[in-house]
Amino acid sequence: MYIWRMSHVLHYAPDNASLVVRLVLEELRLPYRTALVDRSVSAQQGAAYKRLNPVGRIPALETPDGPIFETAAICLWLADRHREGACLSPDLTDPQRGTFLSWLFFLSNTVHAEMRMLFYPSLVAGTDPQMQAVVSQKTQASLTGHFDLLNDAHGNSDIDVTLCHLYLSVLLRWPALYPVAGDRSWFDLGRWPNLHVLARRIEARESAQAAALAEGLGPTPFSNPHPATPPEGSAL
Amino acid sequence: MYIWRMSHVLHYAPDNASLVVRLVLEELRLPYRTALVDRSVSAQQGAAYKRLNPVGRIPALETPDGPIFETAAICLWLADRHREGACLSPDLTDPQRGTFLSWLFFLSNTVHAEMRMLFYPSLVAGTDPQMQAVVSQKTQASLTGHFDLLNDAHGNSDIDVTLCHLYLSVLLRWPALYPVAGDRSWFDLGRWPNLHVLARRIEARESAQAAALAEGLGPTPFSNPHPATPPEGSAL
Repeated sequence: MYIWRMSHVLHYAPDNASLVVRLVLEELRLPYRTALVDRSVSAQQGAAYKRLNPVGRIPALETPDGPIFETAAICLWLADRHREGACLSPDLTDPQRGTFLSWLFFLSNTVHAEMRMLFYPSLVAGTDPQMQAVVSQKTQASLTGHFDLLNDAHGNSDIDVTLCHLYLSVLLRWPALYPVAGDRSWFDLGRWPNLHVLARRIEARESAQAAALAEGLGPTPFSNPHPATPPEGSAL
Repeated sequence: MYIWRMSHVLHYAPDNASLVVRLVLEELRLPYRTALVDRSVSAQQGAAYKRLNPVGRIPALETPDGPIFETAAICLWLADRHREGACLSPDLTDPQRGTFLSWLFFLSNTVHAEMRMLFYPSLVAGTDPQMQAVVSQKTQASLTGHFDLLNDAHGNSDIDVTLCHLYLSVLLRWPALYPVAGDRSWFDLGRWPNLHVLARRIEARESAQAAALAEGLGPTPFSNPHPATPPEGSAL
């Protein structure tokens, strides 16, 4: 019996960072299957998962070249390797390549990294609620500045969609929803009109609609997000 | 009069993240000049510098394609674009490309990002010394785990040097020296023998010796670092 194997397997949890990779896979129209990581038992910290991603975070992508981890690394690798379906990264010789990489790393090492602290303040503050509150306030103020900067940089809505725009759209979704029990009033997408336009533009794409269906994100996952109601697994 | 202009200008401060870019420029044997960013007046936050790097952090690199910012973005762009002098990144079609990108983003968004918190705890903890101490302890414990992981991943010292190894070497230098007034006893490179071998291997290269001379880093900048005594500017 011939067993057909998908060449890409996305290890994911609903509304986790894996969502960015799913958007890229959908944009590129690559065949893939998904494997749910069971967060309720911290499967991402288990030995089997760590063979795919030694860091123990979601996502990981199995590829013909072996497993790749880190959200932005997976997306960049996919966009650079598969240019037939869509062009999500400027070519190596494109004069825009440097600017693109600059923003991609900024999203990854600053915006996304600070958002993890906002959602999981115990990572740096321990269990003391007062300390957690300080970390949350500091992180909210910092992220507000980053969104101001990103809003200024996205004044031109005619440019081609890159994986940075997909990544940023997800980063505009999460602070409206997480932390579930925390203060989210600091985040108002209306404050950043260019980012609001971007969120609406991205969520209208087939890729976003397919991802929203697969992970239960509703019709306006980026411009007006609602808590995920995924068909399998849990966002938390 | 013909004025010859260097095609690459590195905006730097001694022993700052710009050191990683300098190592890459030296490895690739690219002509470049440097422009000191005056940290004593926070020039990196000024309007002139922010035209190069809107995020307002060191480094930025002026290139024929315009300015590029973010340490890892600059290094990846240089390595991918200039392959004639040395090969610091696997080619797009190389099966190792995905693993390389995974570790590069991990160094950038996790190891480097957490080190910034360790050196500048006020960024997330405010001015309270007790809170700063909690953040420092949490960050030290987290970084220890990352170095354990990186040590496991660097068991084979015969592999080709990539920009990840240059980046990691600098990340092995800083925690031995910074924060100047803080506790650094948690960091003992002897605990990670593979990383110690790497540090010695990298500092023996011409690129590292040139960078050490330019920024006053001494003869063993990675395996046994001493405070920088730069010919211009200040590390802090």
